[in-house]
Amino acid sequence: MNFISDNAYGASPEILAALARASDGTAASYGDDAMTAKVAARMSALFEREVACFPVVTGTAANALILATLCPPFGAVLCHEKSHIAVDECAAPEFFTGGAKLVHLEGADAKLTPEAIEQALRGFSSGVHSPKPSVVSITQATELGTLYTPGEIAGLAACAHAHGMKLHMDGARFANAVAARGCAPAELTWKAGVDALSFGATKNGALMAEAAVFFHPDDARDFDYRRKKSGHLISKMRFVSAQWDAYLEDGRWLQTAAHANALAARLAAGLSKIAGVEIAHPVEANAVFAWLPDAMAARLRARGAKFYDWLPSQDGRVMARLVCAFATPEADVGRFLEVAGS
Amino acid sequence: MNFISDNAYGASPEILAALARASDGTAASYGDDAMTAKVAARMSALFEREVACFPVVTGTAANALILATLCPPFGAVLCHEKSHIAVDECAAPEFFTGGAKLVHLEGADAKLTPEAIEQALRGFSSGVHSPKPSVVSITQATELGTLYTPGEIAGLAACAHAHGMKLHMDGARFANAVAARGCAPAELTWKAGVDALSFGATKNGALMAEAAVFFHPDDARDFDYRRKKSGHLISKMRFVSAQWDAYLEDGRWLQTAAHANALAARLAAGLSKIAGVEIAHPVEANAVFAWLPDAMAARLRARGAKFYDWLPSQDGRVMARLVCAFATPEADVGRFLEVAGS
Amino acid sequence: MNFISDNAYGASPEILAALARASDGTAASYGDDAMTAKVAARMSALFEREVACFPVVTGTAANALILATLCPPFGAVLCHEKSHIAVDECAAPEFFTGGAKLVHLEGADAKLTPEAIEQALRGFSSGVHSPKPSVVSITQATELGTLYTPGEIAGLAACAHAHGMKLHMDGARFANAVAARGCAPAELTWKAGVDALSFGATKNGALMAEAAVFFHPDDARDFDYRRKKSGHLISKMRFVSAQWDAYLEDGRWLQTAAHANALAARLAAGLSKIAGVEIAHPVEANAVFAWLPDAMAARLRARGAKFYDWLPSQDGRVMARLVCAFATPEADVGRFLEVAGS
Amino acid sequence: MNFISDNAYGASPEILAALARASDGTAASYGDDAMTAKVAARMSALFEREVACFPVVTGTAANALILATLCPPFGAVLCHEKSHIAVDECAAPEFFTGGAKLVHLEGADAKLTPEAIEQALRGFSSGVHSPKPSVVSITQATELGTLYTPGEIAGLAACAHAHGMKLHMDGARFANAVAARGCAPAELTWKAGVDALSFGATKNGALMAEAAVFFHPDDARDFDYRRKKSGHLISKMRFVSAQWDAYLEDGRWLQTAAHANALAARLAAGLSKIAGVEIAHPVEANAVFAWLPDAMAARLRARGAKFYDWLPSQDGRVMARLVCAFATPEADVGRFLEVAGS
Repeated sequence: MNFISDNAYGASPEILAALARASDGTAASYGDDAMTAKVAARMSALFEREVACFPVVTGTAANALILATLCPPFGAVLCHEKSHIAVDECAAPEFFTGGAKLVHLEGADAKLTPEAIEQALRGFSSGVHSPKPSVVSITQATELGTLYTPGEIAGLAACAHAHGMKLHMDGARFANAVAARGCAPAELTWKAGVDALSFGATKNGALMAEAAVFFHPDDARDFDYRRKKSGHLISKMRFVSAQWDAYLEDGRWLQTAAHANALAARLAAGLSKIAGVEIAHPVEANAVFAWLPDAMAARLRARGAKFYDWLPSQDGRVMARLVCAFATPEADVGRFLEVAGS
Repeated sequence: MNFISDNAYGASPEILAALARASDGTAASYGDDAMTAKVAARMSALFEREVACFPVVTGTAANALILATLCPPFGAVLCHEKSHIAVDECAAPEFFTGGAKLVHLEGADAKLTPEAIEQALRGFSSGVHSPKPSVVSITQATELGTLYTPGEIAGLAACAHAHGMKLHMDGARFANAVAARGCAPAELTWKAGVDALSFGATKNGALMAEAAVFFHPDDARDFDYRRKKSGHLISKMRFVSAQWDAYLEDGRWLQTAAHANALAARLAAGLSKIAGVEIAHPVEANAVFAWLPDAMAARLRARGAKFYDWLPSQDGRVMARLVCAFATPEADVGRFLEVAGS
Repeated sequence: MNFISDNAYGASPEILAALARASDGTAASYGDDAMTAKVAARMSALFEREVACFPVVTGTAANALILATLCPPFGAVLCHEKSHIAVDECAAPEFFTGGAKLVHLEGADAKLTPEAIEQALRGFSSGVHSPKPSVVSITQATELGTLYTPGEIAGLAACAHAHGMKLHMDGARFANAVAARGCAPAELTWKAGVDALSFGATKNGALMAEAAVFFHPDDARDFDYRRKKSGHLISKMRFVSAQWDAYLEDGRWLQTAAHANALAARLAAGLSKIAGVEIAHPVEANAVFAWLPDAMAARLRARGAKFYDWLPSQDGRVMARLVCAFATPEADVGRFLEVAGS
Repeated sequence: MNFISDNAYGASPEILAALARASDGTAASYGDDAMTAKVAARMSALFEREVACFPVVTGTAANALILATLCPPFGAVLCHEKSHIAVDECAAPEFFTGGAKLVHLEGADAKLTPEAIEQALRGFSSGVHSPKPSVVSITQATELGTLYTPGEIAGLAACAHAHGMKLHMDGARFANAVAARGCAPAELTWKAGVDALSFGATKNGALMAEAAVFFHPDDARDFDYRRKKSGHLISKMRFVSAQWDAYLEDGRWLQTAAHANALAARLAAGLSKIAGVEIAHPVEANAVFAWLPDAMAARLRARGAKFYDWLPSQDGRVMARLVCAFATPEADVGRFLEVAGS
């Protein structure tokens, strides 16, 4: 019963098999291989427009490299105070940008609003004494398992663009968002005004495969220099690209994400019927945030359940984060509910 | 007949198989897994002392993170003018260190000497107007396929340490060096005074697996922060560690390196008998640098040979770099010699 | 009636005269001159212990260089959300440190508390995923014209040190704090646990003279490299040092600060008697923050008063920042009160 | 007899007087004052076109900020191996740019040639593995007291621009160059293709006053953010601007430079007649580089002469650097020659 993170599981068998196939023969290194070209074409097809796509191996690299590309050293990135870039990347964006400022904003369910952005910008009225607002960054699905609607994204994009800023989307769990929304990837990104996407595959079945996707290739003019300079250009790139190829093939990425989403929905539905449990945030993707009585949490752990205390215990209960992954066994959900309700 | 780089080949079947095995079940992420612990223990056993070992996925990351750990932002790294860190990493060390200076030194066969270091240091006599000499970095095997002896390394270490500097070894081809020298890894590193090693596996059969190894763990106190901050902490770390585990198992790494070295030796021996060919540097590891008549080079390429022009054509001949890898077919060497000599 | 900033006035005549005297003859450059040595000795005498003192020309340089010295690139600086380093230096600390994170904390009257620090640290429990808490930075006098007591500073220092952090004090208005508290500079700094001070003279009568002061000289071991590397080592340093010499001579710095403090106290006292005015923060140094009715603010400006709207107009009144400086004419205070009360 | 540096002397009386005048009354801070506007207009008039001009207080700041503006973090700056930015600024450009590479080129008399640039660029043929060549930087007058002709500058500019690079001129001794050449400042800069100039006043009579001058203001769009972020925006900016105003007034800057140049010429002429002395580089500005017999150098020092050993003693003689400054007494030259020839 491992609900601790989507990183806890290994990799999809199809992706592992793709790695073995990709190993045959010789290939050009550093991304000049045929598999990488194939993935680039896949990405443009997937997003229904020409995109600039750069495979990397961590989400932090994708986020920080995109932000460094869009935000100058003297710039500011506006983001939610709970966002991964704000609190879980050891200030990587500050390093990659050369010292830009991440401005932390509040917002319910880990979501930004145009109002919060407008209010923050009023604090940037003193010229060069404040960094230059350059990027708005949102996470989809969010760190609290919630989703932005295409309309909400469009509203944020309009606000960002009106102030000369770009809109970045951290899509570490973009698959879960697309699967949940049931709309085209384009609808959730550039059609709504997103300029660049950190597109994740690792959490949803790859070994280590993420991608920086720019919807306006001009923005990415020099991205390849930054990737190399930060040590993120993989010499045997075909091994990253092969993961992407297998991930996107036949809609596999949406099937695995749908599996995780469905388990989360079932888990939330079950928990909400158990006395003393309170669902803390809307369950819209593959994570459930729920207040559990301390005794219930202890009982679950004693029976082998693994999960993360999102907030420490207060008033006799703890907020648990329960993440369902592409490979989470359905039986684990049933067993978790059984122990919780016992 | 692909001699263009050791990156041109895929991965060892045993390493691919290890990845598939590593995928089973759940595991702690970000390096807190059992496989990563096993590799750490393997490394200490291999080097006959406790080392601090940090798996990463590129040699540039290993080099730049080690240099940033050992060299302050206001420091200088003394290295050969042809070294990978000097000319092939898009100035990654300058970025990771926060602006340290790489001081390029000359030396035959891509090797540094204590004399060159002493001479360079005489230019750093003006206090804070020059950066603070902090690290000497050497490559083993070198970018020209040559080797340092343990005695040469000890001489460089003594020089570095006498001036308060650390000694770093870029071991992207460390396996080839150890296999060629036939001595223990410890003899080529800490016993000779090396403080930190960029230990490569990618070029010798891994998909993407390198490691930063510190022989004095105190030096590495904060390395893990730097790795995370630069996006080089892999979430499903077991997939990097599993490559290392299979690489080091049963001496596989030395067998594959010995294969590559043997082919290079055979290639050099054969070429040296062909009129008009001149071996440019001692062939001590897995690369041959040879002056080939332009016509011969053209003929080889017409017949499918791939190799890199290390120096552009001059006086009717070109300096070719011919790299043999862990998976280079022995027959390719024979065929190359046949075409060259025809 | 210029209350807009302590930067609005020029320089003390004694400091200007000192510059002219310092210009005579030749001197060693880059700080190796006799005047700079004299100032170093003065500083140690002033603080009643050996300190390491580095003159610079801006407060941002002093702050950012000290923070870069005490906080690694992967570190975090805990500071008040209204502090100058947080909002008025274009993220200079992030740049100088190489990407450290400034963690903004709340606190009444722009003051930090040990409780706020302890609470923030609870969010840094996930190892390398968060930057390493390294420095607590406070401002004395604060950006809201308030003061820490020696006991409050000692409490913050104890908290910082217990967590392995250093305590930095931004003393752009340190003179006003010392003059107001009436205690020795040592009491407000190292005796209370402060590790490093940004000591300002510019706002209080110098042309451009600040200093980084380290109370434990070992901490400052490499500060001089950082100062040079950031372009802040002045070639004709005697011209910065001469300002410091004249500033500290005969207690001049405390006399000018006391003048500014007294005017602020008089201004606050007068304003507090005027209907519709509300003093927003305790007036403990040389600045008054007061809510003024919009009409009163407009009338004052129409009559030539200059001041900064700290907060925009709301509910018919605006929060004005009124700063008194070393050279503010006493008559301006009387006239301001007269117009305000008319 | 102080010939050690142009920094050894204080400041011109007229500039000191200007500081005292500038101190009167209140003024807007951070460069929004009337004196700074006046200097901006003076600069445009001086260069016969609209320029963007940013006063700073050190040459290192001017150089590093300009380079960071023109060269991305992943870029390369091509410069002479003896240039100040290469060897005397503690790698400030590497820091300000965020890790760009300075590529050191050889060239007689500290001067670059288009040939040297073309040859260096041939080493940058491997795409992102090398940093992107972005700026050529030259020094006028050079670190060896020599000058570029307008034609030489035009040749370098043509070469730089043809490769998509900008041309920067380090003009710490620009006054000496203009005075020596006797042509308009525009002829030595933008008319010859220079994009940005570090314009120095400190060495030639100011206390601390330099300026970054961009001849195409668009290039400088965000320079002001970088200046603030690096702590180089002076709060009481009028005190820097007043130095510039007095410096440029009535051609004072060219008179003082001409004085220094004339003394250097006289010194060189005298030395060249003394047996055993050899002038090492053409004396075209205010510095003389001369080989002096060791005994002569010792005798001069015993009699109070101060100068810098540019190269250490070899074969019984030392290369002395003898710098004449705006305030060097003419009698000192005579006395130096007398002692040297005795």
